[in-house]
Amino acid sequence: MASETAATSQRRRPAEDMLAELKARLREIADLRAANAVLSWDQATFMPEGGAAARGRQMAMLSRLAHERSVAPDIGRLIDTLTPYSESLPPASDDARLIRVARRDFEKAIKVPADYVARASAHAAASYQEWTRARPANDFKSMVPYLEKTLDLSREYSQFFAPYAHIADPHIDDADEGMNAASVSKLFGELKRGLRPLVDAICDQPEADDSCLRREFAKPRQLEFARRAAEEIGYDFQRGRLDLTHHPFCTRFSAGDVRITTRVNDHDLGDALFSTLHESGHAMYEQGIDPALAGSPLGHGVSAGVHESQSRLWENVVARSRGFWEYFYPLLQRAFVDELAGVPLETFHRAINKVARSLIRTDADEVTYNLHITLRFDLEVRMLEGRLAVKDLAEAWRAAMQADLRVTPPDDRDGCLQDVHWYSGAIGGAFHSYTIGNILAAQFYAAALKAHPEISGEIPRGAFATLHDWLRENIYRHGSKFPPNELVARATGAAMSMEPYLQYLREKYGALYKLPAMVN
Amino acid sequence: MASETAATSQRRRPAEDMLAELKARLREIADLRAANAVLSWDQATFMPEGGAAARGRQMAMLSRLAHERSVAPDIGRLIDTLTPYSESLPPASDDARLIRVARRDFEKAIKVPADYVARASAHAAASYQEWTRARPANDFKSMVPYLEKTLDLSREYSQFFAPYAHIADPHIDDADEGMNAASVSKLFGELKRGLRPLVDAICDQPEADDSCLRREFAKPRQLEFARRAAEEIGYDFQRGRLDLTHHPFCTRFSAGDVRITTRVNDHDLGDALFSTLHESGHAMYEQGIDPALAGSPLGHGVSAGVHESQSRLWENVVARSRGFWEYFYPLLQRAFVDELAGVPLETFHRAINKVARSLIRTDADEVTYNLHITLRFDLEVRMLEGRLAVKDLAEAWRAAMQADLRVTPPDDRDGCLQDVHWYSGAIGGAFHSYTIGNILAAQFYAAALKAHPEISGEIPRGAFATLHDWLRENIYRHGSKFPPNELVARATGAAMSMEPYLQYLREKYGALYKLPAMVN
Repeated sequence: MASETAATSQRRRPAEDMLAELKARLREIADLRAANAVLSWDQATFMPEGGAAARGRQMAMLSRLAHERSVAPDIGRLIDTLTPYSESLPPASDDARLIRVARRDFEKAIKVPADYVARASAHAAASYQEWTRARPANDFKSMVPYLEKTLDLSREYSQFFAPYAHIADPHIDDADEGMNAASVSKLFGELKRGLRPLVDAICDQPEADDSCLRREFAKPRQLEFARRAAEEIGYDFQRGRLDLTHHPFCTRFSAGDVRITTRVNDHDLGDALFSTLHESGHAMYEQGIDPALAGSPLGHGVSAGVHESQSRLWENVVARSRGFWEYFYPLLQRAFVDELAGVPLETFHRAINKVARSLIRTDADEVTYNLHITLRFDLEVRMLEGRLAVKDLAEAWRAAMQADLRVTPPDDRDGCLQDVHWYSGAIGGAFHSYTIGNILAAQFYAAALKAHPEISGEIPRGAFATLHDWLRENIYRHGSKFPPNELVARATGAAMSMEPYLQYLREKYGALYKLPAMVN
Repeated sequence: MASETAATSQRRRPAEDMLAELKARLREIADLRAANAVLSWDQATFMPEGGAAARGRQMAMLSRLAHERSVAPDIGRLIDTLTPYSESLPPASDDARLIRVARRDFEKAIKVPADYVARASAHAAASYQEWTRARPANDFKSMVPYLEKTLDLSREYSQFFAPYAHIADPHIDDADEGMNAASVSKLFGELKRGLRPLVDAICDQPEADDSCLRREFAKPRQLEFARRAAEEIGYDFQRGRLDLTHHPFCTRFSAGDVRITTRVNDHDLGDALFSTLHESGHAMYEQGIDPALAGSPLGHGVSAGVHESQSRLWENVVARSRGFWEYFYPLLQRAFVDELAGVPLETFHRAINKVARSLIRTDADEVTYNLHITLRFDLEVRMLEGRLAVKDLAEAWRAAMQADLRVTPPDDRDGCLQDVHWYSGAIGGAFHSYTIGNILAAQFYAAALKAHPEISGEIPRGAFATLHDWLRENIYRHGSKFPPNELVARATGAAMSMEPYLQYLREKYGALYKLPAMVN
């Protein structure tokens, strides 16, 4: 027996050594990416303008070093050798899952040739540069050749992953593993069928008055309030910080350093507040990942859709709820006595949930927002399929806006030029995750409420720990250990489903807009 | 003739290609170091405490990558092959000098084994950690074994560069190429002989009253004033920024991004102001380097001593002069009406130039400061030579302080434990550059005045461009192209010399302290 144990130990020892080596290699890649993220954060927050040229070069170099390491053949050999070992481990163990994710990342990475990465990234930079000029100039025509090349590159990218059922599938899978054009289209069809009557019913009512949000609000006090709200819902400033940038974002340098940024608008009380809470949701996810997964491919949020679900859950489901403001509104009134003392909670709550058909995705309310997304997804798919030519995009955009939102953009600036995504990246997987996030946010929240019905009584008292703990336990801590579908099933006991989201919207907006047919 | 030209071109073409390759390789090393500098700056300025552990690992990795590249054998082969080519170039051309400096850097780097670098850096980190505890606890004894190991490592380091005339020479040459223990000792002997009667004469006079600097000064206004002064002397905020840190420093990420930090003390008006101007001097040097040298080994300041000369020139020679305050004092009084309205310029100027024998180097005035440095240099040399045992350092420190400064530290905290240098690095080249900087500052300033006598009339009008331009033209723009001794000779027409510094001190302090024997 003793000799058998020794033999077993000898046979297994190398696998454990190799696993340690694989982890060290992957951690080095993660550290290179984290270093690059620091440079990128600094570029967006504090870098003087003179630093731009060298910074671009330095970031490109760190990207290249990380990429080279991520496709190194000996990483592949380590993963191959470790695969039988991983099959001998408990299927839900961290190590088994780490080897699975490392294999998936490696196999994806090696399919994309280095020269493609360089071409695509150079084109994205040039296209973005041109877009920053073309959008304010309302000049879609000059973007057409750029977007045509982006479309070519997006198709070329898909080819690396052939065969596929649909040409958008590789792009969708990059953002949200396990989803594809068919499943997203099915979900979005169902969503549109559910949303249309709701939007119609709301828009038949008198428009909500949100003028109480449009007064002049001193920026430092806005920022201080947003910071306090972020801290109270559970964003840990010992392991993070809040700065100002043009576009709000969340970035992770390590488990102990997950930063967020926001922006402040003198005449829009919602901007800083909801941006901050949105980014706090992303950050709480990253801060809540099991420290044992740090520096491994499991040590970050699992997909764009699940990540977005966490930002939307806190921004919309929690922070636009009546209960949330029962606690926070007196504090907000104290911070802005002159501006809000005479504004009842009711009025404020209706203002932050005002629904209106509008032109700009990022300004859209919680309900119509999704119509902006389904529209973009549909156009992406048609362009990839070759059913819509880039030169016809502006016209197709106007038609779709009229059909889905009953508004027509007066120009392309606030039409098909409004979002940076297509003009700085690829076509095919740029937008759908936002709505996946909305859908999952409602499903996760419903599951948390089912497990802890006391949550809805706690929020009006400013107590967020029960909800935060449930999210940490069921979602955050797992990082990328479980693929999105498995994570959803484990956390909610069911596959991803539209019903909780439609029910959430119907109940909330039925009550807010007093829509009798919707309330029950 | 045509075929000869072609042949020449063919023979020379590979050298130019190889030079381009060498430059690209060196730029990648510079970019890795710059990326690491961003991480280090962030660590000192904005990083939340939770980020510390991963940040240390990420920085160590970037250091290792830069070091591996800097000792790669093919860099050595490129330099070897290019050396005959460099000899065919004009001796003062950028390319000839670049190849020379690349060779010097490479030959130094390959002499130090990687395992030594790892051991020394691990020991430095451990020793620093212990020092942060031991200094406030006044516990020199616990530092003895750390310092003994530091001394062993410092000796081991020197051995890599054997043969040498003196065991401190390799350390001194690292900081200040072309200097050695003999030349520093000679300079410092001369300096002490010149300083002693000056310090005695000053200290025989009534002590200057600096209570006007010790009132309560609001931090934001201090910072605003320091920022304005930095901008007016010529620090370019389009290519830099000012932040707060525990210890002020200057760091360079690229030609367009050279940042400084400062600290602010409620009860010491000089702290933020002179720290900021000191770091601005370092930064203006880096900002003034010819952009053509960026990313090459010529693209930064040439030596510790020359760098320090630029910070000291602005901090002391300019910003503690009477003329400087003729312009700035009314502005300072306007910023601090309650605190300074009744304080005459005369009183303020004497306060910022108060000379007194004291315990702490970093608090010392311009005159006695150098005695703190010569004392440390002497102790370093004696330890390296084996004439002073580490365990006897505290006692030797007290004896030297009594002999040179006529004060005796009441404890080791404010004695031999006061400076971080020996406890976080090597022994042998830690301090001398500060005084080299003082000496060169006076010599450079005298040369600038000789070329542009109008400078002394411009400063009281707040006009710094003539001086700044002279420094840029004669020092800054060259980066590391000329070794320090050659740079000094080119800029001042003479070898480095003590006389301008002693003359500067005698004139300034003779006038301030009304010392008749010194004035003429």
